Amino acid sequence: MNVTVRGRTRHYRTVTFDPARNEVLLIEQRRLPHEFKIVAAKNFRETAIAIHDMVVRGAGAIGATAAYGLAQGALAFRGSDLQKFRRHLDTVYQTLKAARPTAVDPVNAMNSVRARMHAGRSVEEQQKLALAAAAEFANEDVAHCEAIGRYGARLIRNGMKILTHCNAGWLAFVDMGTATAPMYAAQAQGKKFHVFCDETRPRSQGATLTAWELAQQKISHQIIADNAAGHLMQRGEIDLVIVGSDRTLGRTGEVANKIGTYPKAVLAKRHGIPFYVAIPLSTIDWRLKFGFDIPIEERHESEVLGAWGAIANPQSAICNPQLVKRAYIRVANPTSGARNPGFDVTPPELITGIITPAGIFKPKELWKRRYELGFSD
Amino acid sequence: MNVTVRGRTRHYRTVTFDPARNEVLLIEQRRLPHEFKIVAAKNFRETAIAIHDMVVRGAGAIGATAAYGLAQGALAFRGSDLQKFRRHLDTVYQTLKAARPTAVDPVNAMNSVRARMHAGRSVEEQQKLALAAAAEFANEDVAHCEAIGRYGARLIRNGMKILTHCNAGWLAFVDMGTATAPMYAAQAQGKKFHVFCDETRPRSQGATLTAWELAQQKISHQIIADNAAGHLMQRGEIDLVIVGSDRTLGRTGEVANKIGTYPKAVLAKRHGIPFYVAIPLSTIDWRLKFGFDIPIEERHESEVLGAWGAIANPQSAICNPQLVKRAYIRVANPTSGARNPGFDVTPPELITGIITPAGIFKPKELWKRRYELGFSD
Repeated sequence: MNVTVRGRTRHYRTVTFDPARNEVLLIEQRRLPHEFKIVAAKNFRETAIAIHDMVVRGAGAIGATAAYGLAQGALAFRGSDLQKFRRHLDTVYQTLKAARPTAVDPVNAMNSVRARMHAGRSVEEQQKLALAAAAEFANEDVAHCEAIGRYGARLIRNGMKILTHCNAGWLAFVDMGTATAPMYAAQAQGKKFHVFCDETRPRSQGATLTAWELAQQKISHQIIADNAAGHLMQRGEIDLVIVGSDRTLGRTGEVANKIGTYPKAVLAKRHGIPFYVAIPLSTIDWRLKFGFDIPIEERHESEVLGAWGAIANPQSAICNPQLVKRAYIRVANPTSGARNPGFDVTPPELITGIITPAGIFKPKELWKRRYELGFSD
Repeated sequence: MNVTVRGRTRHYRTVTFDPARNEVLLIEQRRLPHEFKIVAAKNFRETAIAIHDMVVRGAGAIGATAAYGLAQGALAFRGSDLQKFRRHLDTVYQTLKAARPTAVDPVNAMNSVRARMHAGRSVEEQQKLALAAAAEFANEDVAHCEAIGRYGARLIRNGMKILTHCNAGWLAFVDMGTATAPMYAAQAQGKKFHVFCDETRPRSQGATLTAWELAQQKISHQIIADNAAGHLMQRGEIDLVIVGSDRTLGRTGEVANKIGTYPKAVLAKRHGIPFYVAIPLSTIDWRLKFGFDIPIEERHESEVLGAWGAIANPQSAICNPQLVKRAYIRVANPTSGARNPGFDVTPPELITGIITPAGIFKPKELWKRRYELGFSD
């Protein structure tokens, strides 16, 4: 999507590849929203470190990064011994996999690249196929998000006020994002609307990443405390809710997403406001039978007890961009602890529709349509 | 309530008066939770500044502070000319009133002190009556909170997990608080229970003040993000909700309280969890006919865009108490703005009961019992 740096607007993807230098290029997401910077991972080990250290985060984005990382590792091999090449590639694969051991996206992405490489009969052929497959993986991620945008944009009418939670934006994918894709597509169609970004405590991805994205795309928006949506719904100030999902159960239509999603779904239902979830098909879990069985990560209490930001003027909330100094502050009472569940599960009866690259479905429809949606026995 | 400073536990009130020095003594609430400090307002102008600068906040606490401030001003008068004394007292009254112009509590408190003074026939008699009336006002505030505690403690059973939002604790009153009073009373009865404190963004009164209070009283508690209560309710981890209220409509039973109260009430209803509101009778508004007419203050966006705290270690969230340096950080994207409604309104059908010093009532009962609850035509 568009990013304006020193008055110049350019199109960026979250993850790209420079074949001439054999480098993976990433938006340094840990500096956002206070600083925009592209970093180059110069070899597959640096790419693994970038995944591990959260330079890049989000399902689609780390998938594409791992795919490019595998190609990068393959291209760095010198020689023509296929046996040695395969051993080298195993090291690359394991290094990238170990960078985020619980994530499925890097593994799925690398497996799809490896499967394509088998057709090559020499090291050189396999190297070329690896790069082509990684690029294709990234392009498909973009195509899926664009399809979500096409379907979702139909839900957005002129003058609407839309609520979103957390960041399921282009920074979490290669481009466009999922929950944000309908907004970007509607904007391209000339529609005018306003977005409320839930701050999304404790990690504040809404206030930092989603708000940054929308500001770069010049979409009208405001940040609200996670507490405020109920009041805005009561006053008729929210017409539509769109969120993303980390895992959607294909059998039940239950949706696991960032903590705080479920309360918004309950409020939307009470106020008759449509509540949509935008997902790529790769996040559908066809195996689990009960939402209760989705493991809910308990994260470190320091996230709840404090906040990250840039030292600023408390009257205006303005920080000097020349002097951005990131700091962690403890907000909470120093002798108290915290509970910090990272996700919650929203039941299907609260969800108006699930926006996928294959169309918009009722949650309960997923299982009926499982063969067209990528289920395999 | 109890506060432990350097290993020594003592009982404190939020507001007290030192007649020997003619000083109003206040807990400096802007330093909490990182530092506990009593400040002395040496004359009525300093007392007004303390109210204005939020050294003291909360309905009951600023009422008592203004009452003591009026007595303090009266006692500072030298001479016996009643005419001059009355003019002096007018200045004191207006100065204290102007310190928080939208609050009704200081005005009501000062009016009750002034009414009592009329019986005095000399300056000296009136001065004595002023001090007695101010002390009585403060003691009545405590008695009301204790009565709320007695009724509310019956709702708390051993092993319960209780959710509260914002700070309706003893720091907001002279002692005991409203939403916290049932907890303190239940603790005194030997009951064991656990409290989840909503962080309460954007001003984080739950994470700072309520958590500090509960820690000082050694009540088991944890802070949670405002987003987390829905998940905890789904998992059966919350048995009871108790909150305070800034204004309760006597005619309808609608409750205005800190932003984020209404979503918790909606969630509690869905999960069949009792939702109680604890209030002193002085916060019942017998005049307004519709909750929609309650003015909802839109506060400065800097509260949502950032956070206040003490610089700390991001891994552990621990800050060095010797080096506590309070800072404001901007969390949000620097080019985004915010909406910041300060309160929301919870309808009566979501409220199990209203805990008052006169007993626990259904919201709709308030109007029927208006004459015993302080309504006057």
